[in-house]
Amino acid sequence: MAHLNEHYLKLKAGYLFPEIARRVRQFSEENPGLGKSLVRCGIGDVTEPLPPAVIEAMHRAVDELAHRETFRGYGPEQGYEFLRHVIAESDYRQRGISITDDEIFVSDGSKCDCGNILDIFGDQNRIAVVDPVYPVYVDTNVMAGHTGPADLSGAYEGLVYLPCTKENGFVPELPSEPVDLVYLCFPNNPTGAVATREQLQGWVNYALSAGSIILYDAAYEAYISDREIPHSIYEIPGALDCAIEFRSFSKNGGFTGVRCGFTVLPKSLLALTSGGEKRSLHPLWNRRFSTKFNGVSYPVQRGAEAIYSEKGQDQVRHLIHDYLDNAEILAESLCSSGLDVFGGRNAPYIWVAVPPGYNSWQVFDKMLQDIHVVITPGVGFGAQGEGYFRVSAFNSRENVREVGRRFKEVNW
Amino acid sequence: MAHLNEHYLKLKAGYLFPEIARRVRQFSEENPGLGKSLVRCGIGDVTEPLPPAVIEAMHRAVDELAHRETFRGYGPEQGYEFLRHVIAESDYRQRGISITDDEIFVSDGSKCDCGNILDIFGDQNRIAVVDPVYPVYVDTNVMAGHTGPADLSGAYEGLVYLPCTKENGFVPELPSEPVDLVYLCFPNNPTGAVATREQLQGWVNYALSAGSIILYDAAYEAYISDREIPHSIYEIPGALDCAIEFRSFSKNGGFTGVRCGFTVLPKSLLALTSGGEKRSLHPLWNRRFSTKFNGVSYPVQRGAEAIYSEKGQDQVRHLIHDYLDNAEILAESLCSSGLDVFGGRNAPYIWVAVPPGYNSWQVFDKMLQDIHVVITPGVGFGAQGEGYFRVSAFNSRENVREVGRRFKEVNW
Repeated sequence: MAHLNEHYLKLKAGYLFPEIARRVRQFSEENPGLGKSLVRCGIGDVTEPLPPAVIEAMHRAVDELAHRETFRGYGPEQGYEFLRHVIAESDYRQRGISITDDEIFVSDGSKCDCGNILDIFGDQNRIAVVDPVYPVYVDTNVMAGHTGPADLSGAYEGLVYLPCTKENGFVPELPSEPVDLVYLCFPNNPTGAVATREQLQGWVNYALSAGSIILYDAAYEAYISDREIPHSIYEIPGALDCAIEFRSFSKNGGFTGVRCGFTVLPKSLLALTSGGEKRSLHPLWNRRFSTKFNGVSYPVQRGAEAIYSEKGQDQVRHLIHDYLDNAEILAESLCSSGLDVFGGRNAPYIWVAVPPGYNSWQVFDKMLQDIHVVITPGVGFGAQGEGYFRVSAFNSRENVREVGRRFKEVNW
Repeated sequence: MAHLNEHYLKLKAGYLFPEIARRVRQFSEENPGLGKSLVRCGIGDVTEPLPPAVIEAMHRAVDELAHRETFRGYGPEQGYEFLRHVIAESDYRQRGISITDDEIFVSDGSKCDCGNILDIFGDQNRIAVVDPVYPVYVDTNVMAGHTGPADLSGAYEGLVYLPCTKENGFVPELPSEPVDLVYLCFPNNPTGAVATREQLQGWVNYALSAGSIILYDAAYEAYISDREIPHSIYEIPGALDCAIEFRSFSKNGGFTGVRCGFTVLPKSLLALTSGGEKRSLHPLWNRRFSTKFNGVSYPVQRGAEAIYSEKGQDQVRHLIHDYLDNAEILAESLCSSGLDVFGGRNAPYIWVAVPPGYNSWQVFDKMLQDIHVVITPGVGFGAQGEGYFRVSAFNSRENVREVGRRFKEVNW
């Protein structure tokens, strides 16, 4: 008889965001008059329309599909050359980073890539994640059988957790035990922290000496406003030999519902066979794309390409500027309520210490009930997230101003 | 140091279609004057533009994303309710099959689903595939570590191969050894064969008695013109307890470049834990979608919805009618050249026995060199495919007529 993948049964109930959705739904049903007074600053979803350059490009692409002469069926699984080229050129080569077009793999989003990347690694690797952490890194490792069960704090046996605390500025210290794969995400979700060039160089040096691979999630790089902070791990010497980078159009172009992102996997990246031979990972990832994926929707790829046009770049800059201004308004409001506030300067997320006497789900429930604002409880991101909550700056200015007012009304 | 997934190293060089592309590219480079004389009947890619109803719906959806009031970000990972509902209603409930909306999982294509489904199964399952077979079923099992190495014929150790031959009408007999998962695909790619109600009932009875699960690929169901042939495995009593069905909009709506399909996973489907407990697979597949996927592009889902509108249905019927007429023209031409021809009546593929003295790659090369027509060598689909080649009916009428003429010119 068929057997199921038992590793799934180790997963804690409810991925964070479905659980938030459940509580919000329940509260809304119990309070039918709530209507528009509910404001969501929970899930990190953009709220502003797509840039006009993207809209135009997508319309044009849809029209191409309406005529036999310009119709396109299956595209290259790894993405059209027009998009791989403009990404490699604009995000990397123009910044002095030597990445070739075919080291760019266009996908339907970073969340998928972060999970799928495990396919090309062996099961014997020791995996390190930061804590708090984007739950997808952890859950996909659980599903792949790389962990034992979770303990009471929610930590899975077999994973190496690297605490990100107020004391280390939410940038983890190097692991004290050897690890083979390590997930880093800067600007960070959920803490909004960034890593300096020196901190990243420390990680690259560690990875090079240990032969580890850094899985670098740079989905929020567009929010970096500080000139000294690297946008890509490949700005760090040596990183081409030890890092895979994940990027997304979700948070710059507003593609959360359109779905496009990419992975950068340099050909110089090697990993071991069990016989001790070093092999390039690039052909494996390429093969995964050929065999388990069929490319991103053509109009979506044309939309992503338009982000790199002059108009597109200008429109994206405005969008991001607006979201960062939102972050400033929210951070000020929280600060002036006497709370301890982090992030929000180079990231669309604000990370806030809960007031004494509360845990993070209690703050979630109180915010929902008292001021009808949805935030994200820190513990949803890991044990070290307890004692914090995340506020997302993805919202209209009107809503942000309203939430700013309401934060000050909370009676702690 | 990081280890790679060594199972990838067992894969035979080149997934079939990239290898075809390589040979065609090489031939084109060596014959620069070739130009438009080259006609591709190889990869099963549609050639006709999207139905107007789909184009309209996609434009409308793109426009929604251009305004804050109608903008949509992250959608439900499993698909929007509007699409899940119309699928469950039109493809199943209206045909008397009891499938609920939340048993439909909308994805970016059947190829992805066929590979990803393995995530929710244990590694101890015995896997059966037909031979010849769509290579994705085999390769994804190799990548997941479910096989040993390949032998000289290309067959992987550990997989159970079920021969589909002229003698059994290209519908496999039940396995003589117990298997836990079995891939079936009707109308078949590559043979174009269909299974009768009685044959499918035999498979369902087998699966129910053995506790196996049938992975039923129905990507080509829209091509069934014979009224007696089931469109869905769920037309067979008992199948809701033993089958997962994969469907695609690639070959009805022409979505090969737009990317959308769906999986049907009934809640009644159970599989074993190692402790011998039976559990529903539905929550596992649901969890996989929540954790490793972020939903299909919104405009694409609206396009897929439009396929089910009255206009959309009418337009799709015309498209399929045209492709089936193409199949008839090609089959007649091949027949009149004295070749043994199968399929093409309820499927867009024609399966042709190679003339004596040739193997299937030799026929591929000869067709390419002598008449500039790209076909697919049968052996690319498995050892039993040797001795055959596949001709795809996805082409313009003009090209099909031309290819029909050229087939008759080949000097065997």
